[in-house]
Amino acid sequence: MADSFFDLVARRYSVRSFSAQPVEEEKLRQVLEAARLAPSAVNYQPWQFIVATEEELKAKICSAYRGEWLQRAPVIIVACGNHAESWKRRDGKDHCDVDVAIAVDHLILAATALGLGTCWVCAFDAQKLHEVLQLPEHLEPIVLIPLGYPGEGPVPAKKRKALDEIVTWQA
Amino acid sequence: MADSFFDLVARRYSVRSFSAQPVEEEKLRQVLEAARLAPSAVNYQPWQFIVATEEELKAKICSAYRGEWLQRAPVIIVACGNHAESWKRRDGKDHCDVDVAIAVDHLILAATALGLGTCWVCAFDAQKLHEVLQLPEHLEPIVLIPLGYPGEGPVPAKKRKALDEIVTWQA
Repeated sequence: MADSFFDLVARRYSVRSFSAQPVEEEKLRQVLEAARLAPSAVNYQPWQFIVATEEELKAKICSAYRGEWLQRAPVIIVACGNHAESWKRRDGKDHCDVDVAIAVDHLILAATALGLGTCWVCAFDAQKLHEVLQLPEHLEPIVLIPLGYPGEGPVPAKKRKALDEIVTWQA
Repeated sequence: MADSFFDLVARRYSVRSFSAQPVEEEKLRQVLEAARLAPSAVNYQPWQFIVATEEELKAKICSAYRGEWLQRAPVIIVACGNHAESWKRRDGKDHCDVDVAIAVDHLILAATALGLGTCWVCAFDAQKLHEVLQLPEHLEPIVLIPLGYPGEGPVPAKKRKALDEIVTWQA
């Protein structure tokens, strides 16, 4: 199980080109199930996932994002944080971003395990997306997750800081 | 690989009781490596992990947290966000929390795959922790991650919202 997980982490990359093959509903349910089981602060589960497969809805979502590649994804999931439900620490810190990111990480790793390609898309116009989706005030769109089978193209090598650069031992 | 990942997600739970067995350095490196490979906005990798195994340092960390169980963890990792490096969206939103959560989720799933127990600990006194660890201004401690082999005790069942409660299809 350990080797398999490390393989998965190594294999995940940002996919921005998709084949025309649709995503099976069963796989879509499986990745959402992986998100559903994610932990969250005080188990409040402050998340909502909007699943878009129709062109019209995808176009609405893409109107808040500059890259044209996004609309060619067979599925776009809008991961929203629910600020009415998220845990706030005593000092006021809202854990919505942390919790949504955990659930989305589960979803994205599950998709990778199923042979699907995804990408964390955060550089969108959040206010515009909020408007076009007519979201209630307490829902914040935090991540757009395109989902589909990867198209042709090279898999990029991971460039990361060295371990010693990001770890302080016995500080 | 898919079954294995879904098993992993199902098996992870919040461990707050640890056996006295120390964590092998090799496993510690492996979980940190899983964090290192995590994606982040613009690949900025705005994270720093402080690894505490000595009692004195663990006691310092625990002075900012109420639960006595934490100090009995063989290892405590302080996952910090680096606000000097994190990506800020055009509207000012800082993606530090999202990115650190992705890396910590990788770390925690890797630990689970290696048979280690962990817990997301976020309910600490961040200002006090910042002070006792003498962190620079730009580093924010976001998650404390105890790490060790799980002690005796029942594994709790997961309680989660139903899928239809958290998913909007074709909104």
